[in-house]
Amino acid sequence: MITIELGRRLNQLKLNPAQVLVLGFAGLILIGATLLNLPMASQDGKSIGFVNALFTSASAVCVTGLVVVNTATHWTVFGKVVILILLQIGGLGFMTLATLVALLLGRRITLKERLIIQEELNQFTLSGLVKLTRYVIISTAMIEGLGALLLSTRFIPKYGFVKGVSFSIFHSISAFCNAGFDLTGESIVPFVDDVVVNLTIIFLVIVGGLGYTVYMDISQNRKFKKFSLHTKLVLIISALLLLVGFLVIFIVEYNNPATLGKLSFKGKILASAFQAMTPRTAGFNSIDTGAVTNTTAFLTIILMFIGGSPGSTAGGIKTTTVGAIVLAIISVIRGTDDVEVYRKRIPHDLVYRALAVVGIALALIIFVTMILSLTEKDASFLDIFFETTSAFGTVGLSRGLTPNLSVLGRLIITLTMFAGRVGPLTMAFAFAKKQKEYKGTYRYPEERILVG
Amino acid sequence: MITIELGRRLNQLKLNPAQVLVLGFAGLILIGATLLNLPMASQDGKSIGFVNALFTSASAVCVTGLVVVNTATHWTVFGKVVILILLQIGGLGFMTLATLVALLLGRRITLKERLIIQEELNQFTLSGLVKLTRYVIISTAMIEGLGALLLSTRFIPKYGFVKGVSFSIFHSISAFCNAGFDLTGESIVPFVDDVVVNLTIIFLVIVGGLGYTVYMDISQNRKFKKFSLHTKLVLIISALLLLVGFLVIFIVEYNNPATLGKLSFKGKILASAFQAMTPRTAGFNSIDTGAVTNTTAFLTIILMFIGGSPGSTAGGIKTTTVGAIVLAIISVIRGTDDVEVYRKRIPHDLVYRALAVVGIALALIIFVTMILSLTEKDASFLDIFFETTSAFGTVGLSRGLTPNLSVLGRLIITLTMFAGRVGPLTMAFAFAKKQKEYKGTYRYPEERILVG
Ligand SMILES: [K+]
Ligand SMILES: [K+]
Repeated sequence: MITIELGRRLNQLKLNPAQVLVLGFAGLILIGATLLNLPMASQDGKSIGFVNALFTSASAVCVTGLVVVNTATHWTVFGKVVILILLQIGGLGFMTLATLVALLLGRRITLKERLIIQEELNQFTLSGLVKLTRYVIISTAMIEGLGALLLSTRFIPKYGFVKGVSFSIFHSISAFCNAGFDLTGESIVPFVDDVVVNLTIIFLVIVGGLGYTVYMDISQNRKFKKFSLHTKLVLIISALLLLVGFLVIFIVEYNNPATLGKLSFKGKILASAFQAMTPRTAGFNSIDTGAVTNTTAFLTIILMFIGGSPGSTAGGIKTTTVGAIVLAIISVIRGTDDVEVYRKRIPHDLVYRALAVVGIALALIIFVTMILSLTEKDASFLDIFFETTSAFGTVGLSRGLTPNLSVLGRLIITLTMFAGRVGPLTMAFAFAKKQKEYKGTYRYPEERILVG
Repeated sequence: MITIELGRRLNQLKLNPAQVLVLGFAGLILIGATLLNLPMASQDGKSIGFVNALFTSASAVCVTGLVVVNTATHWTVFGKVVILILLQIGGLGFMTLATLVALLLGRRITLKERLIIQEELNQFTLSGLVKLTRYVIISTAMIEGLGALLLSTRFIPKYGFVKGVSFSIFHSISAFCNAGFDLTGESIVPFVDDVVVNLTIIFLVIVGGLGYTVYMDISQNRKFKKFSLHTKLVLIISALLLLVGFLVIFIVEYNNPATLGKLSFKGKILASAFQAMTPRTAGFNSIDTGAVTNTTAFLTIILMFIGGSPGSTAGGIKTTTVGAIVLAIISVIRGTDDVEVYRKRIPHDLVYRALAVVGIALALIIFVTMILSLTEKDASFLDIFFETTSAFGTVGLSRGLTPNLSVLGRLIITLTMFAGRVGPLTMAFAFAKKQKEYKGTYRYPEERILVG
């Protein structure tokens, strides 16, 4: 309601969809920060302070999961419910939720509002968008319900009925929304070799990170050959990244006493799979992120940078963005003019769009890492680089830096999470001057330069 | 002579220019390694061992400057002369030198040989290539002579006549070829606040790193407006990178007692300028590379990755490659279909080529950094990341890791220097299957995917 009303007001300001999205997300974060800043949100009955409340709210809305305080012990039930609501809204995309509210109230959805949802979910066409939103809400509720049910078979015996049920619901939502918030105080570490908990969370995270269009496509078409090019690329690239991550972590950490070394063979397999899954961009961890070898840490940084798939709850530059770029590079090496895959041609403007996403994301991460290296003098470069990428990719993994961040560092990471969730291109469109609408027929003459 | 003969033999094997280039460079490195492996090359009269000889030869031929032993104290005059010859050949491009030999002997240069030189110097057209090669040799000799003369005004008073003159010649060649080898044992550190030495070396490195086409263009056309698009981009981007590097280093290191803190204001200015220049890709240093802040180290990594300009003695992915990509990103944000600058349009295939160079380079550096993190367990992540980028960009700066590398690490860095000097695309072309020659008229249907 509030967001729709806000949207109408903003309409009058002639904002473009990207600007509405940025302002909407920012508004939601501020509302969350105000609530979490209340004394009743903290168990010690004192306000946590606005910077920390803002950090936590941004972390929840951006489904990141980086925390400056222990979620389980610091927040009251009120605080935890606020966080849960924020991450559920953030995970679904607040504009999608605004559509739902409008649907429920039978109000007309304006074309402009549809355009904003389109930008948010990153859809191709307007047709079927309302249908998709309905599908999103229903499937989310079903999958999260199933996840909670599975988790409760482990959590109720361990934590008792009331705590067990609420833990199951919280972690199922947090996993599906790729949010990474936990109530155990040490993420999934206590369940490192529990098959049910591991597989349930891996399932929730992966499904949440594939994107709604993908499982709509899968449920409608069933066969790989019939899937859209988008679905094919998402499935292939996601599988490849999981496989590479699993193999590298399994081999490199096999004898590391601080991580896999102490586990049984079954535990090693489960933990490797879990740690290969978590960078896209779950944020849960079943082994100590700060104790892995530098090789695994760097691989995790790369995987966090790539993240999940578009139109999903995951962050990062997205699997298909990497796919478009890799396919373009292959076309250069093979000497073909077109970027081709599965007997389809990916248009040039998409490759350029992918290039822009990667370029802006890289520039942002490099800039933030350089600034944080100044503000956090005691932290190691790897920890800062890791933290920055985790924030940008809305992953939520940390090598222990988050609670030790300076005030300035907390604000910078807050902004990085925000930029990462909104997305590099949307940020650029929001701040750029109005795009050229008039397309002249005159083209400048071509001139070649030397590159590489 | 040998290389030409080799080239003719290779012709019969139906190798493509990229393969000839890779094999030619490899052959030169092996010859150098054999010579440096001789007992007479080392001052202690014992062979240095093949891995170290190979490393040093590759470092010289690839004009990198990473050293596992102190060049000044380890090698005999014979060894030093071998290194000087290798880096001069490497700097000029061994195929250019082969052309020279052929010219001097009045032999006909075959079209295939011209094509190889074109690949090496990365030129647009075959016309005027012989002229360019002549120009390259003459201008190199003149500039290096001028540099040696200027340096001798400082080196002769300090080191005496014979040592002073040979030091001047060695460092002038090393600077112009962006080779980074030094005979002082501590690079340019003893001259950190010497105006003449600093400005001379900065001049030599920058001119060497602009590329021959650029100063041919400058000397012929004089005015910026008349320059080719290539020259304009090279000059603007080089100036911007120098300026940003200078400002960041000056501000960030101003109070660092291990670097600028102890210097006078003049010394601070000179050292900042020198350290901003050296990543493109000189490899000399006037302050301790291992003592700079992490911010400066990361900035240096980025600058080393970018490197100098195409067709020059410098390495890295090249200034114009970054330029093409940044311009393409701007076109996406502005919503224009063409990549435009200075009223010219950069064709799509060049942007794709630039994308391929960056993509392959990034993948290589990430891969090598991950492997080295396994082989060099005691080294910090930042030092390994720095060393890898320095090797790939043929820069030669090190945070102290080089002499402590394991045998496996030395071989990996040797290969990285080689891949960096040959260039990502040339490597890819050398190893890829034959490019499609037949261009079918059939295009696959376009299908869009979601990115970002
Ligand atoms: K997350
Ligand atoms: K160098």
